[in-house]
Amino acid sequence: MPGGECVIIVAGGQGLRMGADIPKQFIPIGQRPILMHTIEKFLSWNNSLKVILVLPQNQFSYWESLCRNYDFTQKHILVAGGETRFHSVKNGLQHIGDSQLIAIHDGVRPFVSQETIERCFSAADEKGAAIPVINVSESLRKIEKNGIASVGLKRSDYRLVQTPQVFKSSIICKAYELNYNDAFTDDASVVEAAGFPIFLVEGNLENIKITTPFDLKVAEALINKT
Amino acid sequence: MPGGECVIIVAGGQGLRMGADIPKQFIPIGQRPILMHTIEKFLSWNNSLKVILVLPQNQFSYWESLCRNYDFTQKHILVAGGETRFHSVKNGLQHIGDSQLIAIHDGVRPFVSQETIERCFSAADEKGAAIPVINVSESLRKIEKNGIASVGLKRSDYRLVQTPQVFKSSIICKAYELNYNDAFTDDASVVEAAGFPIFLVEGNLENIKITTPFDLKVAEALINKT
Repeated sequence: MPGGECVIIVAGGQGLRMGADIPKQFIPIGQRPILMHTIEKFLSWNNSLKVILVLPQNQFSYWESLCRNYDFTQKHILVAGGETRFHSVKNGLQHIGDSQLIAIHDGVRPFVSQETIERCFSAADEKGAAIPVINVSESLRKIEKNGIASVGLKRSDYRLVQTPQVFKSSIICKAYELNYNDAFTDDASVVEAAGFPIFLVEGNLENIKITTPFDLKVAEALINKT
Repeated sequence: MPGGECVIIVAGGQGLRMGADIPKQFIPIGQRPILMHTIEKFLSWNNSLKVILVLPQNQFSYWESLCRNYDFTQKHILVAGGETRFHSVKNGLQHIGDSQLIAIHDGVRPFVSQETIERCFSAADEKGAAIPVINVSESLRKIEKNGIASVGLKRSDYRLVQTPQVFKSSIICKAYELNYNDAFTDDASVVEAAGFPIFLVEGNLENIKITTPFDLKVAEALINKT
């Protein structure tokens, strides 16, 4: 592909929700930090993919020591995160060079499948913007006020959104010229606010975002089975 | 409590989604069928709870043989399921006797916590109808048309609904006099259609509904850690 492809992996966790001292992206599963699994999933898909890792500046030296300790030599560009995820992605975008397709992925989603990555890049190449989604498997309700539920919703009308969210570089760069807005829940919402349609592709159930001790249990189970 | 408490455990699975010959409620985790774990969770909470198990009639003899093979002697009433979950619950309600509070629970949710059960019964006793919910941890989108997403939603306005859903018997019996409607996605939606408000309480993250091979992996991880 002319100009090539690139993934911005965003890992801003400070470890607070985990109840651990260590930021969640560095917690080991299957003997290695989560973030290393994540990076390798993308490089397994395309070994010449450009990897931009956005981390809080104060975690750089820890990450570098982890790379030494685990003999992790996969090539990547380290970029300092910003105040919010929006600002972190914006910083990452400064380093995409002439890449034509840009994936943005959560550092704590190490179980993204090769098929999901492929579907996202391929749909983005054709449509401009693609995100992976899965069905909602539980009943869904919208909150009305203080503990009282509104009428239940038809869950088949809804989807849960994962990453990687993949965009043509012209689209994502244009979108990130917008001013920050706290309604930006993910990259697709930024792109959409800039007026571009988002194409949905199938994600994979295992592609969980590891944010709670429960997720970590699930992750340990998955890493032992894959 | 006058008249006591009761749980209707609904297990209608035919095993098709699992890709297994065995209905999912009978799949063993931690050496015993899922359904036995589920029943025991409720009896651990209250050993004098009345347990009504609703199963497809054609699974009665298999269940009875499982009970013999696993020395499962927990007291429960076996009731034949109906055409849909709505009809199965309706059949179960014929056997509640003078119970004052009725929980309805998915047979394939063996990881409901004692605290969740307690919160649901306690809130239903006070408010009439209570269901356990958890936050939505992913971004959420509503489908507009054929693969094109609408604007992302504010996920903090939404909740995923679990079971047990607990009701005063007068309320749930009144609600189930309604005619079947395929908008009834769970018991709360039936009760709501009958004009009663639903009170939300906190569920527990582990309280997953085991319906896919992925869920089964998670279940095996959870059973080994608890």
